Amino acid sequence: MRIGILGTGAVGQTFGTRLHNLDHDVTLGARESGNPRAVEWAEAHAAECGTFAEAVVGADLVINATAGQYAVDALEMAGGNAALAGKVVLDVSNPLDYSTGELRLSVCNTDSVGEQLQRTFPDARIVKSLNTVNGSVMVEPSLVPGQHTIFVAGNDPEAKRVVVGLLGEFGWPAANVLDLGDIKASRGMEMYLPLWVSILRAVDGNLAFNINVVQG
Amino acid sequence: MRIGILGTGAVGQTFGTRLHNLDHDVTLGARESGNPRAVEWAEAHAAECGTFAEAVVGADLVINATAGQYAVDALEMAGGNAALAGKVVLDVSNPLDYSTGELRLSVCNTDSVGEQLQRTFPDARIVKSLNTVNGSVMVEPSLVPGQHTIFVAGNDPEAKRVVVGLLGEFGWPAANVLDLGDIKASRGMEMYLPLWVSILRAVDGNLAFNINVVQG
Repeated sequence: MRIGILGTGAVGQTFGTRLHNLDHDVTLGARESGNPRAVEWAEAHAAECGTFAEAVVGADLVINATAGQYAVDALEMAGGNAALAGKVVLDVSNPLDYSTGELRLSVCNTDSVGEQLQRTFPDARIVKSLNTVNGSVMVEPSLVPGQHTIFVAGNDPEAKRVVVGLLGEFGWPAANVLDLGDIKASRGMEMYLPLWVSILRAVDGNLAFNINVVQG
Repeated sequence: MRIGILGTGAVGQTFGTRLHNLDHDVTLGARESGNPRAVEWAEAHAAECGTFAEAVVGADLVINATAGQYAVDALEMAGGNAALAGKVVLDVSNPLDYSTGELRLSVCNTDSVGEQLQRTFPDARIVKSLNTVNGSVMVEPSLVPGQHTIFVAGNDPEAKRVVVGLLGEFGWPAANVLDLGDIKASRGMEMYLPLWVSILRAVDGNLAFNINVVQG
């Protein structure tokens, strides 16, 4: 697939490298052309980089790996609803805001980044997934042993199937993917983050953890 | 132990019956004396009922099983900081607010019920636990097969030990109890609820589910 990644931080680069190694045709998109991190990554992997807009043009799949509080801006810069129309947009972001010195979410309770994106870009097919694990686990679930669960949410069943296919390439068995319904379920997936941070502290900073949904 | 339970709803009665069967000396406390549900429960189990204040007097352990948004009021009616001083208060509540027709939390992100209680009643020893599972699973974790995790949070290590002991009586192995630190971790534990509700829907309403923390 041709995949455009928005965001050149740790998560964006992790996706870029993993997808490149899976033989996808990746463009790492940055806010500005010539972003040094993007250029360095592209040279190291003989892959492409460019602006957000360049990453989206011709992409079969777009991955939003920007920080959640800037995600709407990033997709606007990428060309907005017209450029994204019909495209599957996998949103892995979290609205983490440390500006007050402690963790809070920049949006929660009555809204979420996933919903903001779907509302602002109504013709994009937003799928929320992977935001409940660390970037390394997102693309390499075998870092966590045994059974553990990954969630998907979105309004478009076909777009969710595309994402579940990609999750399978990363190593997430379909049986471990739990479909939470429409994009409104992003709310719970994002509001889980403060618990995730508390668990991370309780497991002494071991980022290779996840939760497994068990039922009787 | 002498245990005072605040709240006569499904969760309060579930705790009352289970603790009574475990040979604890239970008083089910209601907002008003002579509450029919409390009287009926007490008669059926040859146990005690009374007001919130009567449930707290002489109790070794207090369980807050009222709705989260009314928890501060309930503990105030129970006698406030003076009556609760030194007592272990297990808070199992969630600030679920359906008044707008859809789920929201009445407090979240920068505060939580657990923190409100500890701040309002500084001499009580608040421990948050069990709020991340259905009432039936709280007191009977074997309803969910295999390994699954229950969280505790609170400022007082000895109070947490008392609660972990009680969890053990319910059937939660100590190895499955994850201590998330001080009472501020209530925030994440309560903000998990929207995800819990989404998972409940995805597992077709099967209340006998929980999450297991798995690490590499």
